[in-house]
Amino acid sequence: MKLALVGTGLIGSSVGLAAKHALGAEVSGWDPDPAALAGAAERGAIDRDAGSLADAVADAELAVVAAPVAQLPAQVVEVLRHSGDGCTVTDVGSTKGWIAGAEPSVRFVGGHPLAGSEAHGPAHARAELFEGATWFLTPSPTTDADRYRALHGFVSALGAIPVAVDPQAHDRILALTSHLPHALANLLLNQVGANRVEGHEPLAAAGGGLRDMTRIGGANPRIWVDIFLDNADSVRDALAEHRRRVEQLEAALDAGDAGFVARWIGEAGQNRRRLLTGAYGEAGQIHRLLVRIPDRPGVLSAITQALGAERINIEDFELRHDSPERGGAFTLMIAGEEQAQRAADLLESQGYAVDVSPLDES
Amino acid sequence: MKLALVGTGLIGSSVGLAAKHALGAEVSGWDPDPAALAGAAERGAIDRDAGSLADAVADAELAVVAAPVAQLPAQVVEVLRHSGDGCTVTDVGSTKGWIAGAEPSVRFVGGHPLAGSEAHGPAHARAELFEGATWFLTPSPTTDADRYRALHGFVSALGAIPVAVDPQAHDRILALTSHLPHALANLLLNQVGANRVEGHEPLAAAGGGLRDMTRIGGANPRIWVDIFLDNADSVRDALAEHRRRVEQLEAALDAGDAGFVARWIGEAGQNRRRLLTGAYGEAGQIHRLLVRIPDRPGVLSAITQALGAERINIEDFELRHDSPERGGAFTLMIAGEEQAQRAADLLESQGYAVDVSPLDES
Repeated sequence: MKLALVGTGLIGSSVGLAAKHALGAEVSGWDPDPAALAGAAERGAIDRDAGSLADAVADAELAVVAAPVAQLPAQVVEVLRHSGDGCTVTDVGSTKGWIAGAEPSVRFVGGHPLAGSEAHGPAHARAELFEGATWFLTPSPTTDADRYRALHGFVSALGAIPVAVDPQAHDRILALTSHLPHALANLLLNQVGANRVEGHEPLAAAGGGLRDMTRIGGANPRIWVDIFLDNADSVRDALAEHRRRVEQLEAALDAGDAGFVARWIGEAGQNRRRLLTGAYGEAGQIHRLLVRIPDRPGVLSAITQALGAERINIEDFELRHDSPERGGAFTLMIAGEEQAQRAADLLESQGYAVDVSPLDES
Repeated sequence: MKLALVGTGLIGSSVGLAAKHALGAEVSGWDPDPAALAGAAERGAIDRDAGSLADAVADAELAVVAAPVAQLPAQVVEVLRHSGDGCTVTDVGSTKGWIAGAEPSVRFVGGHPLAGSEAHGPAHARAELFEGATWFLTPSPTTDADRYRALHGFVSALGAIPVAVDPQAHDRILALTSHLPHALANLLLNQVGANRVEGHEPLAAAGGGLRDMTRIGGANPRIWVDIFLDNADSVRDALAEHRRRVEQLEAALDAGDAGFVARWIGEAGQNRRRLLTGAYGEAGQIHRLLVRIPDRPGVLSAITQALGAERINIEDFELRHDSPERGGAFTLMIAGEEQAQRAADLLESQGYAVDVSPLDES
């Protein structure tokens, strides 16, 4: 498999290492920063240090664009221009709203692995970075099923769990789960850092709680200024809701409302447990879902996004169009009887005819 | 040394283990909860399971009250009543404002170690819990110097760094460094937990950042309802300032102000580094500061709190009153020439005559 990395920082180089490890991929790389490119070669993340973006992607089967958010749209256009028809193009950007404004291509499917680190640069790249991580994919109504299947398989091979999502929904989810936490870490650091209490510097008296809560604070401004501005609308919505919740708490403290505070803490404890236990079903025997589908665009994205929203993990799938009149069949492989049945119920509730059967492994 | 623990949960039992380890203390313990008392005995944190609070403190030299915040004032009164004149009494409560409303006693000095854990109960107690931790002490104008010296030495022997602070200032510092972070963790959990985005549950797509930021969320309501309500004024001030900072950020995002966002992230990065590097001076040769003092109440608390605010670590001290006319001398031992000189400059700027000399170790 021929893989091209456009951008060889922490994420790009980790994709390279993971793909070489899992798939024996042959990896070419390019980065506008010569140091990042040299670092990726030294780390063993790329086999070939390409002289240009065009050279890197020329004969690739898959090109992964791992550039900072602000440069993504332009770089994806460049990669599509210089790569051949056989090349599928994806990215790993933290925001996906820009996809709506880009010219659609059947060869492009957006992506975003929820993996990262305080560290950055190829020196910190690891093949295991994506192990068990959610990897959002944004199939669109124009997405080609075979290309999506190849990308889905690639992401799974790297150890990640592909979850299909609409680009706008992706950005609203990330505003809540990543950008709001980053904002709160920064706000907290700057408030505690700016205060003096009768000569004491509160920052010097910080316990482990404040240290944990600010681990993600002050993250690389080269990356985060763009993320905050690129996703400004969703981040502002999240901040406004946060402010309303702060006001509620202030009112409860003002009223000495112990009941409110106790319920509020209890709810947080429940949410913390939900966060830690995750929502994945147990693995189990693979089941085949045969779904009759109409021959119209958007079926792939509609079905994968619906299952993604329920965090039903698709192991593999096949999309077959029989004819415009008779439509076709979408075959999905799903691990575990319970999860397969949930998937079937969900799709039936959306009007599809679904047939479930255990895949005979004998 | 005879130590009494009134309250044998995580903190109380850890004090017992640390005192036995560092000082060979003989520890009696009492807790209204029989399970906590039995747990402390099992963990080896107490030598004697006292039948009552009165029995536990009867012949103690130091009594440490480690009760939940709401029960502290009443338990301290009980402990003072049942202990002898030779017994110094302290507590480990997370708020100190209640001290202003309590009847003053020369035998009582408030305390608060910045150590804790997600875990609670004596089973999780550890002798090393206080190693390197700030341990706030609240000497008052009526505090007896010998008792304060003994408590200061006790806390140091447990591995903690005693920092003198005014009780009200303590609560404002903790509102910023502990109660606000706890509140934000809970607010974040409840906001992310309450949202659904096109069928997706954002909590299920949480990355490591959200996990870190909510580690302290949903903490034991039995403890935290009281802390929030007991320190409601300072917490509300901190929340109101936080809200103003959120509004600033919203305005910057609204205006697409990349400069503001970059400066704001940069400032957070600086504050994060300050938090991690801490403000402690290097250890070094012990220096003796001889401070001439007037014979008036409050000198001990004034000097120790002033040095605490600058995080100048006092290794040991002696307070000697010569006469009402001539006043007396306060001798302080401080590690490191640079730190000793900072202490001397600070006290001279407050009108004291100070003499610094290296302590000859030969």
